[in-house]
Amino acid sequence: MAIDLNCDAGEAFGAWQMGEDATLIPLMTSVNIACGGHAGDPLVMRRTLELAARHGVAAGAHPGYPDLAGFGRRALPMPPAEVELWLLAQMGALAAIARSLGITLRHVKPHGALYNVAADEEALAQAIARAVVAFDAGLVLVALAGSALVTAGHAAGLRVAEEAFVDRGYDAHGRLVPRGMAGSLLPANGDVAARAVALARGQPILAQDGTSLTIQADTLCIHSDTAGATAIAQVVRAALGTAGVAIGSFSQARPTT
Amino acid sequence: MAIDLNCDAGEAFGAWQMGEDATLIPLMTSVNIACGGHAGDPLVMRRTLELAARHGVAAGAHPGYPDLAGFGRRALPMPPAEVELWLLAQMGALAAIARSLGITLRHVKPHGALYNVAADEEALAQAIARAVVAFDAGLVLVALAGSALVTAGHAAGLRVAEEAFVDRGYDAHGRLVPRGMAGSLLPANGDVAARAVALARGQPILAQDGTSLTIQADTLCIHSDTAGATAIAQVVRAALGTAGVAIGSFSQARPTT
Amino acid sequence: MAIDLNCDAGEAFGAWQMGEDATLIPLMTSVNIACGGHAGDPLVMRRTLELAARHGVAAGAHPGYPDLAGFGRRALPMPPAEVELWLLAQMGALAAIARSLGITLRHVKPHGALYNVAADEEALAQAIARAVVAFDAGLVLVALAGSALVTAGHAAGLRVAEEAFVDRGYDAHGRLVPRGMAGSLLPANGDVAARAVALARGQPILAQDGTSLTIQADTLCIHSDTAGATAIAQVVRAALGTAGVAIGSFSQARPTT
Amino acid sequence: MAIDLNCDAGEAFGAWQMGEDATLIPLMTSVNIACGGHAGDPLVMRRTLELAARHGVAAGAHPGYPDLAGFGRRALPMPPAEVELWLLAQMGALAAIARSLGITLRHVKPHGALYNVAADEEALAQAIARAVVAFDAGLVLVALAGSALVTAGHAAGLRVAEEAFVDRGYDAHGRLVPRGMAGSLLPANGDVAARAVALARGQPILAQDGTSLTIQADTLCIHSDTAGATAIAQVVRAALGTAGVAIGSFSQARPTT
Repeated sequence: MAIDLNCDAGEAFGAWQMGEDATLIPLMTSVNIACGGHAGDPLVMRRTLELAARHGVAAGAHPGYPDLAGFGRRALPMPPAEVELWLLAQMGALAAIARSLGITLRHVKPHGALYNVAADEEALAQAIARAVVAFDAGLVLVALAGSALVTAGHAAGLRVAEEAFVDRGYDAHGRLVPRGMAGSLLPANGDVAARAVALARGQPILAQDGTSLTIQADTLCIHSDTAGATAIAQVVRAALGTAGVAIGSFSQARPTT
Repeated sequence: MAIDLNCDAGEAFGAWQMGEDATLIPLMTSVNIACGGHAGDPLVMRRTLELAARHGVAAGAHPGYPDLAGFGRRALPMPPAEVELWLLAQMGALAAIARSLGITLRHVKPHGALYNVAADEEALAQAIARAVVAFDAGLVLVALAGSALVTAGHAAGLRVAEEAFVDRGYDAHGRLVPRGMAGSLLPANGDVAARAVALARGQPILAQDGTSLTIQADTLCIHSDTAGATAIAQVVRAALGTAGVAIGSFSQARPTT
Repeated sequence: MAIDLNCDAGEAFGAWQMGEDATLIPLMTSVNIACGGHAGDPLVMRRTLELAARHGVAAGAHPGYPDLAGFGRRALPMPPAEVELWLLAQMGALAAIARSLGITLRHVKPHGALYNVAADEEALAQAIARAVVAFDAGLVLVALAGSALVTAGHAAGLRVAEEAFVDRGYDAHGRLVPRGMAGSLLPANGDVAARAVALARGQPILAQDGTSLTIQADTLCIHSDTAGATAIAQVVRAALGTAGVAIGSFSQARPTT
Repeated sequence: MAIDLNCDAGEAFGAWQMGEDATLIPLMTSVNIACGGHAGDPLVMRRTLELAARHGVAAGAHPGYPDLAGFGRRALPMPPAEVELWLLAQMGALAAIARSLGITLRHVKPHGALYNVAADEEALAQAIARAVVAFDAGLVLVALAGSALVTAGHAAGLRVAEEAFVDRGYDAHGRLVPRGMAGSLLPANGDVAARAVALARGQPILAQDGTSLTIQADTLCIHSDTAGATAIAQVVRAALGTAGVAIGSFSQARPTT
């Protein structure tokens, strides 16, 4: 049983940079690439796809609310049927550039507010699943472990990779403590390492209120926009290695078309 | 020998409308649908694709410079390699929505400044042709008859539909008299009808300076953003019918996938 | 006692048109001009300001959520303090163009979702009032009659013009029946004329559920994006004239600087 | 005779950061703040204005082509009269936020492609000068030393601060060697220090081709988007201090309104 490591990437825009793609992507097994909705533009998409390919990392789409000014972190009041069309457009844009480079996308992970809202709102989760099925039913849907999006993905017949976070606090219901609130981030890289190993082994972790929480995760997210993300990834890989946990992409079995 | 009739469509954006899609599309054999670059958004794309499908009109992509504020009519100073990526992203976006509706795109026609600049600049024309080949080499490239884009399309191995304009003035070199200049528009629908028949039959027309000009056209463009576009299309169809010219899509032979 | 007639205007964007500004503005006493947030661009702003000045109509700012794609009709999840800054930026943009034309702005009316949310949410209403005071405390704030924005404007020391709608249904609480719901629009121009006279005289009108509702209005809004807006305005002016109600701007007393 | 030190700032956008504003601004005497055209948003504008005020640095507007995707570095094909309106809108937006903080703008410096094109194209330079005069004739116009924009500013009756660059190569005509070409950047901070002192004293410098070039500069630009900008600024300040050159804003005489 291998655990996947993923990060968001390609979140630059024009002259503006974001994250540590060049050093972080080589440490991942899957990378989620912004599609121009909340971040990214065609030049950034190509550059990021090439980086993933060069390091043998599985490339996926990372669509979000169409909201550059808000970086996809605002829950736009948008009907699920409209979100569905925006996801198609974003996946289509990235996939076209990928195909021109000989790269096949492997997975889709919604970004930011879209990811969070779809963890609990069924209609939105189902719209996301519909978009993925309509676009390419062979893509793996990456979703918060135990969320409504996991359920919607399975119901739509998709393979789903359940995701956990190595550096974020959880509440007793398995939802992330929102950014900016006490306990939203684990304080030290040591905690992150221990958390990563526990999650990879399916061992219980402690929620913010002390509740014991067992999360079945297929992939661990390393936040690319956290300062020191590359260092965190190195710590996580080392800890997993020491613990004897294999690292491998959830999507590596997919044949290249 | 049939002549194709095409119009640009799907050039609304959000709350803003453009053109007479609902009445004009049924009179066409091919429709070029904006892809979110110079106009269009996912809801508009879906609505326009559905309209084309309902009337049995071949749907194609109408990508442009990414410039909503300028409606794609400004020649952005953008390297051809970047244009190539933008075209991939735009074609990918539209094709993904089309596929979700069971619609296969048949052709690509660049919009506005992109179309005009590519008529003469070889590097840009070649970039456009590369993008189409990389995206789907089965698509027909629609280009100004006799332009550098025709040459680039053929060199890249694409089928090319050469386009002529029923309501625009030509100069002696077969280029359109720019909008806003004297002679840029034919004054009356009667002139348009006669022009359409001559173009469809490959008969010479008069350029703005009186030169005789013979244009080999596969498709005639009806400008959707001209007031009375639907009436012009009706006049053109009637004149072609009277003259015994068959009307049919240049792409109708393509099998639906 | 005169009643003011206002409409929203300048809601074009680039190549896209909106409304009937050229024929509607001359029939108004106040015009609310979009500032580039939900609609409008600098060329449109200048054109609309010139139109207002040519017809002696008082010009005001019509700021909205910064959301061209949603035309300001979506309630963006944005903290009131950020809205305050966006309003400053939008009013500043329009006022700078106005000043270059020798035009002084007289009033401010929030647009769309911003107007509606501020009718009930005090923190947002207060942020809007603060922005207006900081920008120019001599501006009149236009707000839904009886709403939280009226209260916030008065509390901030602003002159407030309370607004009523001649063509929209009201609920028993004096709020508009949302668009798309039954009863959101009055069915006939005759109803609109009678409604306008009643509102201008402070006489009761019937809410959607039959409740009698008395609204104290300083200005009546003619929706510029309703088909036939110019005809509605003519009907309203004629009815007010027949009823002996004077028409005049709420802001005409302001000295031009 | 004091020399002014200026940098561009406030060039973040939403979640994207740019430059070293927090450490660089305190070392300047004038700061040019993006206005939402090529960069910046209302939150960024406020934050940057507050930073300038806290450190007693004169705040000015830094308007650019309305082109976030191109960061204002592309020469948009836009008529001068339209540029004029965009500048009014951008200056108005920043000034409104400044006024709400009790800050008065002191100067205007065009950004990027706008700055460069206006150095040689008179019609554009005059449009910029007209916009500044119409907005606030008390603002100082910052322009490339010896350029057409200096001439246009003087002709319009504006005070003009002529600008030189401490880290950029010049050609024999006093224009900057374009970025990306050999000699566009001085190789070492030592060269920058010597260049700064020579420019501040009005002593000749060597152009890229060895020509001796004397530039009369009122202000020296420290590029905020160069890596190590803060260190460069410290080196420049130290060198000026050692050379006995006083540092002071060109605009400090302006009374606060």
